[in-house]
Amino acid sequence: MTTKIGIIGDGHVGCTVAHELIISGLVDDLVMIDVNEGKVNADAIDFEDAMANLPYHTNIIVNDYDALKDADIVISTLGKISLETKGDRFQELEYNKKQLSPITESIKNSGFNGILIVISNPVDAITSLYQQLTGLPKEHVLGTGTLLDTARMKKVVAKKFNVDPRSVSGFALGEHGDTQFTAWSTVKVFEQPLTELAKNESWQPSDLEDEIKFGGQNVFMGKHYTNYGVSAAAVRIVRAVLTDSRTELPVSSYQEKYGTYMSYPAIVGRKGIVHKINLQLTPAEEKLLEKSAAAIKEKSQA
Amino acid sequence: MTTKIGIIGDGHVGCTVAHELIISGLVDDLVMIDVNEGKVNADAIDFEDAMANLPYHTNIIVNDYDALKDADIVISTLGKISLETKGDRFQELEYNKKQLSPITESIKNSGFNGILIVISNPVDAITSLYQQLTGLPKEHVLGTGTLLDTARMKKVVAKKFNVDPRSVSGFALGEHGDTQFTAWSTVKVFEQPLTELAKNESWQPSDLEDEIKFGGQNVFMGKHYTNYGVSAAAVRIVRAVLTDSRTELPVSSYQEKYGTYMSYPAIVGRKGIVHKINLQLTPAEEKLLEKSAAAIKEKSQA
Amino acid sequence: MTTKIGIIGDGHVGCTVAHELIISGLVDDLVMIDVNEGKVNADAIDFEDAMANLPYHTNIIVNDYDALKDADIVISTLGKISLETKGDRFQELEYNKKQLSPITESIKNSGFNGILIVISNPVDAITSLYQQLTGLPKEHVLGTGTLLDTARMKKVVAKKFNVDPRSVSGFALGEHGDTQFTAWSTVKVFEQPLTELAKNESWQPSDLEDEIKFGGQNVFMGKHYTNYGVSAAAVRIVRAVLTDSRTELPVSSYQEKYGTYMSYPAIVGRKGIVHKINLQLTPAEEKLLEKSAAAIKEKSQA
Amino acid sequence: MTTKIGIIGDGHVGCTVAHELIISGLVDDLVMIDVNEGKVNADAIDFEDAMANLPYHTNIIVNDYDALKDADIVISTLGKISLETKGDRFQELEYNKKQLSPITESIKNSGFNGILIVISNPVDAITSLYQQLTGLPKEHVLGTGTLLDTARMKKVVAKKFNVDPRSVSGFALGEHGDTQFTAWSTVKVFEQPLTELAKNESWQPSDLEDEIKFGGQNVFMGKHYTNYGVSAAAVRIVRAVLTDSRTELPVSSYQEKYGTYMSYPAIVGRKGIVHKINLQLTPAEEKLLEKSAAAIKEKSQA
Repeated sequence: MTTKIGIIGDGHVGCTVAHELIISGLVDDLVMIDVNEGKVNADAIDFEDAMANLPYHTNIIVNDYDALKDADIVISTLGKISLETKGDRFQELEYNKKQLSPITESIKNSGFNGILIVISNPVDAITSLYQQLTGLPKEHVLGTGTLLDTARMKKVVAKKFNVDPRSVSGFALGEHGDTQFTAWSTVKVFEQPLTELAKNESWQPSDLEDEIKFGGQNVFMGKHYTNYGVSAAAVRIVRAVLTDSRTELPVSSYQEKYGTYMSYPAIVGRKGIVHKINLQLTPAEEKLLEKSAAAIKEKSQA
Repeated sequence: MTTKIGIIGDGHVGCTVAHELIISGLVDDLVMIDVNEGKVNADAIDFEDAMANLPYHTNIIVNDYDALKDADIVISTLGKISLETKGDRFQELEYNKKQLSPITESIKNSGFNGILIVISNPVDAITSLYQQLTGLPKEHVLGTGTLLDTARMKKVVAKKFNVDPRSVSGFALGEHGDTQFTAWSTVKVFEQPLTELAKNESWQPSDLEDEIKFGGQNVFMGKHYTNYGVSAAAVRIVRAVLTDSRTELPVSSYQEKYGTYMSYPAIVGRKGIVHKINLQLTPAEEKLLEKSAAAIKEKSQA
Repeated sequence: MTTKIGIIGDGHVGCTVAHELIISGLVDDLVMIDVNEGKVNADAIDFEDAMANLPYHTNIIVNDYDALKDADIVISTLGKISLETKGDRFQELEYNKKQLSPITESIKNSGFNGILIVISNPVDAITSLYQQLTGLPKEHVLGTGTLLDTARMKKVVAKKFNVDPRSVSGFALGEHGDTQFTAWSTVKVFEQPLTELAKNESWQPSDLEDEIKFGGQNVFMGKHYTNYGVSAAAVRIVRAVLTDSRTELPVSSYQEKYGTYMSYPAIVGRKGIVHKINLQLTPAEEKLLEKSAAAIKEKSQA
Repeated sequence: MTTKIGIIGDGHVGCTVAHELIISGLVDDLVMIDVNEGKVNADAIDFEDAMANLPYHTNIIVNDYDALKDADIVISTLGKISLETKGDRFQELEYNKKQLSPITESIKNSGFNGILIVISNPVDAITSLYQQLTGLPKEHVLGTGTLLDTARMKKVVAKKFNVDPRSVSGFALGEHGDTQFTAWSTVKVFEQPLTELAKNESWQPSDLEDEIKFGGQNVFMGKHYTNYGVSAAAVRIVRAVLTDSRTELPVSSYQEKYGTYMSYPAIVGRKGIVHKINLQLTPAEEKLLEKSAAAIKEKSQA
């Protein structure tokens, strides 16, 4: 009955995800957890101060891990964005690793048995850690991964052709980080391969690649964090899980072939990753994917 | 056709209002304006990075006052919350006053002729200034005022009786600030006057008054700003204007009797304030209202 | 996790409630049940034909009582509107009574243990029968009752004063039928008792009473059924239950004092009727309520 | 400002589109027009009886063509489904043709200058007539066409692979009628061509073709009309126009190459058809498209 969702971490991303879930009427009981009690209580009160003016109701519970017992979804947003001084998400790894152990212990102790969605960076490594530490089935733990980067790619391509980003298809793949790449062979707009359309243009797909990353950095430089894009990505996964829509999304999921969590399209439903997709990539793209997998594994062990 | 809304100021409140409008699918064209170009561009890009994962589309325009020409609504969120060191919103007045002149000039030059909703603090004084400087009809300029404080009162009462805050009626009135007060004679829950119900309780309505204000301060102390409660209040006004629902809301509106903008229930529709309410307050409450009006006028002239 | 709702009866009302739930994204798994297999399958296919163009997903299950086992809510819309030849909902009673026995048996056998919302007419009698036959706790079984008639009253009053019907307060009470009445002592608009405001008008509250009923009949005469008003009432109850908002609503609930189901405001939450309201009615209104209770009981036994 | 939408025809489809627009909060002012005054007034009252229980407000205007003057969109749903005795939508043509002349005259006289969306069957012929009779630019007049059939195709394919219909790509093309066809070369699921995937299956794409049409007929046989699927298609177009999202949709639009209105993917935005797509069809599919165009033209002149 109750749609109950827990959010671990109430930083820029955590409270934005909470806001989006509340505004969308997607969550009946929301459990907000953060070590900064002042901040998480402030946000909870602020949300409650909104309630009388909002069309849909949400009940808010603060810092109670036990309340996660019957949660449908837990979303991890913990992190310390200030550590990403050079835009390298792996600078957060050590910090987040240390935080993870007591958190996953508390999640386990609560008896939580739902779907775990990880936003925390470096997302592929942290998703993997969450799965190992909670012991949840690999299919029940996934990360937002390149769902955000795919949206960024769609935005950049959409602007070039003055079209709805939702009418651009294709994927950014691999690590949500330095080694990620757009699989241009998968990108289509106006029902034509972008690589074909680009032949008539003054730019190359690779020019867009820079624009995609440059856009992301612009956000970071302008406000020292990003929150709206990644929240929308997380909430989209939430919807797929809650409604069991079995939607195809590029998310960080366990890739047997590479022995690591990494973004690749998969079918997402109530049981998490319910089906794996097999893309027909070019050999060059396959190589980039291998490289990305290797980078995640190497950095994760460091 | 197009629902076009402009937001002046992209601080904690501005971007939260933007987020709420986008997520709710309430705005087709959104004009975001801020002197901090890095921040406002960062938020715009971040919203665009969300688009492919959101169900509804919004077009975003940055720092273009001319685009306000055919806007339906402009929302002012400018302010410098850091100036509110002692929780006194009038510390922001001088700062905001100075900013207002070029902004209202630009709004006027755009040819904007819609409804102006003011969140900037001290909201009653700033709403008044906006009206004077833009020359828009008094009915077309209104402030969020005690719509937020009313929601806070409803929350506090609702918690006492374990009921939906939307099922509590009544109003906080006057200045959105030190002299505001809950008109307890208007407050009902379970279809009974709170003053009657309180006779069987261990607390007095005046105890709740403290709790209402204490709650607001807790938010401020916990995160050094408030955004969700006031955004929901602003968006509720936006809905009433766009749909011409003619909803009764306690908002900062021009009170002829007192010669000042101040919060009092009014009917809000497409033309702004379309009807005034006349409450049957107690003499004590009438006195508090007078006092509040006097305080706004005195501080505004200082 | 899953929000699962069952709808018994796929006539004009059943499919409209289904449509409203699907469009609002309120239901993840929808169980549609009707003896007319052609019709219910047609509607299910038609909804599925809508899915690719709708923002939110719903899974649809047809004519499977066992699927109600873990449903949160079951809504009964069965009925034969063609029997209401003279606008008397009790003409449907015999017909609906006969249908009820196998249906409630199937609901019981499914193991359903959620909230039962009854729209079927005569709603007070049928709600009572549902409760008796399913053996569910009285608080878990409720009827839409005068929530619709209250909305009709608000609409009529709102038109008189050109205001949002949501800004009119007050209740229609008693039987959803011939003996229902507006408790005018509870009705307020512009924060003033309607009875006071009416003194300056050319009409009497009792004139509106006719208009309220006349409106309802106009719908019936124009299309031989009503569906949108009552669906909105049912869906509002659904929201209160799912979100546990504990909203005050005038619904058909068991009234110990009168020994019958009848509409009277109550607090509705996840556990159904979670609190009873005690109105301060006038002696005349109290008498009307008694009369209405007596009418329900008499007709129910007939 | 105001989002104003007119609906011509208040039959099964007209009122369902109205319901969907109201429930979604997509329309501020709704103009409902039908020659059956009893029915259209009944629906208007019924919608108004819903208002107090709905989160968003809509103002409803009945049978006032002049109110279309500043409408953003007019949707034509007129028709007489009972004439489609053998499932041939062209049996409605003569009837609808006769009705069209006074209607288009009234639309023209209102000064309407927005986007006209046609659902009335046979949709390609009627869309063409609407454009000719109103004199609106060809890009401003479009029909739902095979947007519904495409959704049906996605549903059928989605069921085969247990996946979200929104994660199936591809198009049904041509006439919304006997000669329509699925362009299987455009259909992909799991990022692979369906024609490839089908090689491992016990069925052929052509088997699905029957299932797609059979499904549609099942709806018709089960309830003697269809409404939900086509309403969702129309509302999706409405969203694309209102938000100017520039979404790619297979809709009935004027095809210069064939000299007729016919369904083919196009980019839909605030100005209607804002860009044409060029599919790489197989020679066989191109032939089917030609045939379909010829059929529309032939039947239209009959």
